[in-house]
Amino acid sequence: MGKLIEIGTKIIAVGRNFAAHAKELGNAVPKEPVLFLKPTSSYLANGGTIEIPPPSLSLHHEVELAVVIGKKARDVPQSKAMDYVGGYALALDMTARDLQSAAKAAGLPWTLAKGQDTFTPISSMLPTSAVPDPDNLELWLKVDGETRQKGSTKDMIFKIPFLISHISTFMTLFEGDVILTGTPEGVGPVKAGQKITCGITGLLDEVHFNVEQRKRPVSS
Amino acid sequence: MGKLIEIGTKIIAVGRNFAAHAKELGNAVPKEPVLFLKPTSSYLANGGTIEIPPPSLSLHHEVELAVVIGKKARDVPQSKAMDYVGGYALALDMTARDLQSAAKAAGLPWTLAKGQDTFTPISSMLPTSAVPDPDNLELWLKVDGETRQKGSTKDMIFKIPFLISHISTFMTLFEGDVILTGTPEGVGPVKAGQKITCGITGLLDEVHFNVEQRKRPVSS
Ligand SMILES: [Mg+2]
Ligand SMILES: [Mg+2]
Ligand SMILES: [Mg+2]
Repeated sequence: MGKLIEIGTKIIAVGRNFAAHAKELGNAVPKEPVLFLKPTSSYLANGGTIEIPPPSLSLHHEVELAVVIGKKARDVPQSKAMDYVGGYALALDMTARDLQSAAKAAGLPWTLAKGQDTFTPISSMLPTSAVPDPDNLELWLKVDGETRQKGSTKDMIFKIPFLISHISTFMTLFEGDVILTGTPEGVGPVKAGQKITCGITGLLDEVHFNVEQRKRPVSS
Repeated sequence: MGKLIEIGTKIIAVGRNFAAHAKELGNAVPKEPVLFLKPTSSYLANGGTIEIPPPSLSLHHEVELAVVIGKKARDVPQSKAMDYVGGYALALDMTARDLQSAAKAAGLPWTLAKGQDTFTPISSMLPTSAVPDPDNLELWLKVDGETRQKGSTKDMIFKIPFLISHISTFMTLFEGDVILTGTPEGVGPVKAGQKITCGITGLLDEVHFNVEQRKRPVSS
């Protein structure tokens, strides 16, 4: 994951930031970013095992570009926003789609659908010098070697400088905080025993996670 | 706030944990805890100023008992849950009720309604030794000297050991993480220029916060 991500205290995720993905879930394209929080306890380092919690859930992969904040940011104008980026990573915004659908229907928070342990697998951090054009990155994800998602950050509805500026008007971003910038189309469920590989074309291709059923200890 | 709270990385808040409060907002009494996250960037130390963000929002006070986690907790049984408490504090779960109502109606997250800077005013921490019976604490809140909320933790639907156990089956709780245990009835809006005082009868009575309109810097 890298030291910068390890000192972070929050993950702010953007929903529906690719028009084709909003559509595939039957959602409208938003007029302003849909924001939600994931806890840093949901991180899983490269090579780790994603756990599907009992009762067996419809756990979906969402491959996303993670923007790592490099220094404290509050009320940052778009024109200066990129100065606050400390690096990038590839992340999965794992989503218990059945829990999320139930929460949406009931007007309830998405916390358990998005925030459980191992629900934010993440690569090691790429320095900004390695990513000259973050608005033109091809993200891809395969399940058992079969391509499920492939999309470019150029199709993001809200771009990185806007997101940093916008979020920083509501909440202070600290060093190591992460913004998950949304997923392209092609999300779908994974099952125990499957293997996810993902990458950024030309930049990152050794990112992989196993998927298993979570076993809870028998407790008193 | 105290060192333990300062090292925490998340705030897990429980909604609708008092039947009379669930009712006053027209919500059903839940069968399992309604959980949501607030970022630690929303903390405000005793004596600070709560900022109402523009455009002027209906910002409600919710006085709550905060349980501070003392050590890493995962899959903790109820019978051992109290061993993981490091202390208690009094907190306000400030809520932009208009944003929350819109989010609920649209099936969207409560993040901006609950997570903005200064939306989690909190007292200094009380050690567990000072709180022999956390299930029998009277919480009170006044606005400009007039009582608005007064309720006892004995009326919590889900008690502290259950909450710690339940939450720890979904996500690892770390040292310094905070659980906000829900608010009794009497929530309502505060306006710029008002002053909130709150306390725990017999334990804590010097907790106070000012309320002002937030001014954003003019940005490029
Ligand atoms: Mg957090
Ligand atoms: Mg996502
Ligand atoms: Mg509350």
